[in-house]
Amino acid sequence: MTAKKIIIDCDPGIDDALAIVLAHGSPELEIVGITTVGGNVGLEHTTANALKLREFLGLHGVPVTAGSAGPLLRARVDAAEVHGDSGLGAARLPEPRLRAAPGHAVDFIIDAIAADPGEITLVAIGPLTNVALAVRKEPKLAEMVRELVILGGSYTRGNFTPAAEFNIAADPEAAAIVFEAGWTVTTIGLDAAKHALATGWVVEEMRAMGRLGADLLVPCVEFYGLATAADGPAIYDACAVAHVIDPTLHVFAPAEVNVETVGRWTYGMTVTDFDVRPGRANARVATSLDVARFWDLVLPAYREAAARMGAAETTAEPAP
Amino acid sequence: MTAKKIIIDCDPGIDDALAIVLAHGSPELEIVGITTVGGNVGLEHTTANALKLREFLGLHGVPVTAGSAGPLLRARVDAAEVHGDSGLGAARLPEPRLRAAPGHAVDFIIDAIAADPGEITLVAIGPLTNVALAVRKEPKLAEMVRELVILGGSYTRGNFTPAAEFNIAADPEAAAIVFEAGWTVTTIGLDAAKHALATGWVVEEMRAMGRLGADLLVPCVEFYGLATAADGPAIYDACAVAHVIDPTLHVFAPAEVNVETVGRWTYGMTVTDFDVRPGRANARVATSLDVARFWDLVLPAYREAAARMGAAETTAEPAP
Amino acid sequence: MTAKKIIIDCDPGIDDALAIVLAHGSPELEIVGITTVGGNVGLEHTTANALKLREFLGLHGVPVTAGSAGPLLRARVDAAEVHGDSGLGAARLPEPRLRAAPGHAVDFIIDAIAADPGEITLVAIGPLTNVALAVRKEPKLAEMVRELVILGGSYTRGNFTPAAEFNIAADPEAAAIVFEAGWTVTTIGLDAAKHALATGWVVEEMRAMGRLGADLLVPCVEFYGLATAADGPAIYDACAVAHVIDPTLHVFAPAEVNVETVGRWTYGMTVTDFDVRPGRANARVATSLDVARFWDLVLPAYREAAARMGAAETTAEPAP
Amino acid sequence: MTAKKIIIDCDPGIDDALAIVLAHGSPELEIVGITTVGGNVGLEHTTANALKLREFLGLHGVPVTAGSAGPLLRARVDAAEVHGDSGLGAARLPEPRLRAAPGHAVDFIIDAIAADPGEITLVAIGPLTNVALAVRKEPKLAEMVRELVILGGSYTRGNFTPAAEFNIAADPEAAAIVFEAGWTVTTIGLDAAKHALATGWVVEEMRAMGRLGADLLVPCVEFYGLATAADGPAIYDACAVAHVIDPTLHVFAPAEVNVETVGRWTYGMTVTDFDVRPGRANARVATSLDVARFWDLVLPAYREAAARMGAAETTAEPAP
Repeated sequence: MTAKKIIIDCDPGIDDALAIVLAHGSPELEIVGITTVGGNVGLEHTTANALKLREFLGLHGVPVTAGSAGPLLRARVDAAEVHGDSGLGAARLPEPRLRAAPGHAVDFIIDAIAADPGEITLVAIGPLTNVALAVRKEPKLAEMVRELVILGGSYTRGNFTPAAEFNIAADPEAAAIVFEAGWTVTTIGLDAAKHALATGWVVEEMRAMGRLGADLLVPCVEFYGLATAADGPAIYDACAVAHVIDPTLHVFAPAEVNVETVGRWTYGMTVTDFDVRPGRANARVATSLDVARFWDLVLPAYREAAARMGAAETTAEPAP
Repeated sequence: MTAKKIIIDCDPGIDDALAIVLAHGSPELEIVGITTVGGNVGLEHTTANALKLREFLGLHGVPVTAGSAGPLLRARVDAAEVHGDSGLGAARLPEPRLRAAPGHAVDFIIDAIAADPGEITLVAIGPLTNVALAVRKEPKLAEMVRELVILGGSYTRGNFTPAAEFNIAADPEAAAIVFEAGWTVTTIGLDAAKHALATGWVVEEMRAMGRLGADLLVPCVEFYGLATAADGPAIYDACAVAHVIDPTLHVFAPAEVNVETVGRWTYGMTVTDFDVRPGRANARVATSLDVARFWDLVLPAYREAAARMGAAETTAEPAP
Repeated sequence: MTAKKIIIDCDPGIDDALAIVLAHGSPELEIVGITTVGGNVGLEHTTANALKLREFLGLHGVPVTAGSAGPLLRARVDAAEVHGDSGLGAARLPEPRLRAAPGHAVDFIIDAIAADPGEITLVAIGPLTNVALAVRKEPKLAEMVRELVILGGSYTRGNFTPAAEFNIAADPEAAAIVFEAGWTVTTIGLDAAKHALATGWVVEEMRAMGRLGADLLVPCVEFYGLATAADGPAIYDACAVAHVIDPTLHVFAPAEVNVETVGRWTYGMTVTDFDVRPGRANARVATSLDVARFWDLVLPAYREAAARMGAAETTAEPAP
Repeated sequence: MTAKKIIIDCDPGIDDALAIVLAHGSPELEIVGITTVGGNVGLEHTTANALKLREFLGLHGVPVTAGSAGPLLRARVDAAEVHGDSGLGAARLPEPRLRAAPGHAVDFIIDAIAADPGEITLVAIGPLTNVALAVRKEPKLAEMVRELVILGGSYTRGNFTPAAEFNIAADPEAAAIVFEAGWTVTTIGLDAAKHALATGWVVEEMRAMGRLGADLLVPCVEFYGLATAADGPAIYDACAVAHVIDPTLHVFAPAEVNVETVGRWTYGMTVTDFDVRPGRANARVATSLDVARFWDLVLPAYREAAARMGAAETTAEPAP
């Protein structure tokens, strides 16, 4: 089986990191590139974190390209209270030696997908600023991408406001552009992803994963858990990557999703109509997650990533 | 125990009728008046239906006062596809002999409550046009009413649009006025009331209720059920009356409710923030309904109403 | 010639006072009643000012009825910086001995017009809260009124915000209701009324008007002028009354006026389309004012009002 | 004197063509590039028209780069009824032999300005989609550009709707991005530019300009004039180029311009506050145009462009 190629557009961010580790540890996937966007924290931090993760994990040869520092139109918001000021909670990652690639995330996304049409899945787990700019600059992206998977939105209640989820609310106009761009957006929102809870037994498993566990996974999850309370934090972003690995983990329903860009109390809400008229569906929206199978997929991948790190430490040469 | 005095502001409407029957059959309540508003169907129908119900049930002496024909600002909408063109589905009620009281519902509400301050509960189970006009004309209403109970809104998903519930969406500006008027609105929305399902066994009970069952309850519920599918229709409005009889049937949480009057996709949504800052709560919102106890309360009251009808047929004199 | 009957719905306010004086001094008009609304200053002040004006001018027998204290939906705003904290600048009027009539302005407007259909012109020179509530409570008002003349709006630029004029912006939802109520609204906005400047020679004429000039007109105009700068203040509201006296003073064009109730920067703007499709005109909008003839009409009326005051001082009996 | 370097971002469009001719015939200017955007007509036409104009005029070596086909968020609108289906009215221009440059207008704008910081004036005379994408992709554009001059907006009334001017209303979100990007936008709107009327004597002058007059200027102006009536059409876009040549032609006032992106009736309006608080000005807005001096500048430039065409016909080699 050939690995599926993915680009991860992200704003690490704790759950972004956990998603990247999952992708790295999954032989089913090939990470073509990582692009960054301002979101959970500012772009300077999300890019630095992506670079740190690349070297810490040993993602040699995977380009990291910086993108949009802020949303298209609205004032910038962040989620530093959840992810820590630097975006990765209490994780202890060394300073990176290598820099981001030249150029802009928007062009990386367009050029990579245009060079390999029909083959690359774009997994967007931050605000959709880069994706919106890319599809406005190159409308054919909607046909050339294999699949667009986003982690964002909710069809019931939000987490940033009572109505809106953070990734969408952080750039509602970008999200509106993305949902209207002519593709069918695979949408994994809070309704499904909130069940991906890293509860106590998960943390115990992570503790047994050597340096990956000790320096990244456990401190991230513990920091995140304190911030979000509950039975353990939901590692939302990992759901989007998990979907690419195994599309049967979530149940989906076709829907017409409209992003509210006008509302006073509902700005950034993904208004989701499942009673969709023929030809109006622009999304398939996850309505549930098979939690047991999710962890059955995630934890082995984390172990594989941990194992690669051990190997890497003795053999790796830094990528140019 | 003295009966609690209530005014029912309604747009009958099938579930409005089922709420009125409940109030009539409950010795705990005294219906001070019924006021009508355009909503499920036009005002001419909702008023005619209230008059028919009054005579059919033998609600002698209870004034019916007509109110607002349409919403404050938005274009009129209705729910005739759910309630039938005349608003009472397949019910077979005789034409009424008595007319509506002179004057306007807004003044009836103000005058009745001002004449008996602290004693009257206003139960609003239609669009909030009358209530909004009343509280704008007499702001002290907010202090003089014993309690305002509304059936409307949702903190997850709507039934008129994906985001908005019908009673609120039918007059969002009125609802916004009501929630900002300075009282704490007892809000029973879809989230709780959708569990008040008149399933098969309920219909069988109704069938044994003589003329009340045969001519009103059963045809209403069957018509409504065809329109709304599901396991039987939810008789939403009856929940608001049931709450006045037994305030422990629902669980409530304090919340700040803001009605979206601006949104393109969310017009009429009740944006409900349970993480409310001190002093900002303007509502207590029902989060669940004890369904078993609900029917334990409703069905005996229906039987009582049926019994009164039998008695009434031989003795009643029409009220002047 | 029979005098035209008018109701003045107002928020005195300096230019409201100047409008009332004009009506009082014009034999062509009969003031049926004065109703008050919160606007330039709070309702307690606008009502007190109307009462003071009634007694100061000798408007015996004209009922003053208080109405809405605040706008339908928006947060209250005022123009105290222009009209003084009490609303009448530096005017020196004695405390009134008589009180406002019982009842609410909304009912006064409805009842008076319904009692004399086709005969009464409603001149609304404050926020349109009362008028909106009246026409929503009694939709037939739109047919029964002789004419509705409002002072409000602008088809170019505003004075409260760059886009919106004060009277409309003070209650945009009320204005939207009024423009959609089925009548053709005679609309005199800033574009025409801004030319009604009480410049130096006007003030000199006012100075010669005895106690009316010394205690009301001159201090009002001077206070107002300091606040609004320019070549002297525009006494906007008087234009609406002047129009009833002489409908040829202004040039009008048919238009479709829509009040913006949604805009972030344009809330309360009267969007005026002169290129109106047949059947869509809901207003005739003043596009110019014949300034010379305006003063030829106003100043003699002021002199007449001044003369009546002199007469009144020796003969008047207070109205009951 | 060194020529000022300009990039013209345009949607030809009749008045765009007249602006390009002006730039070409003005020795004070050096056209670094022409970029196109969908607007008056679709992008395929605006780009084709730019290419035709380049060859017809002999603008050898000036790259034409295509940009955005449609607005960021709103549904596409056009002005084909004013400019003709192909965008250049009745002009008779030969089919171009050369194609557009590779790449995207957004990158051309960023790269050209970044390569020559402080030296290039960006003259945007179509919808602001390209400019918005450019400044979001490269926020430093706001510091690197010499000046941004736009033709768009109005501080009184619109031409696309009663409130909004076409170029802004065609992409309000883009315009909002541009006005919030940190530069001071030189804004020439309808208020000033509507005075640039190509009345009869102007057309007579154009008639004497050989092939330029006969095949381009006169048929354009006549077609445009029929569509827009009035005393002759206003050649709006030429005002923006004229300003770069002679900054004293217009009077400007500092202002805070906010683009309404939410309003129901005011979508795309440039709400212009001249009473601007210190530090809040984001624009200098043209309040008048010296019409006589405008034509004194434009007509000689047109003659020069006509003369160059004559010369070009005998000597030109097509640019590579």
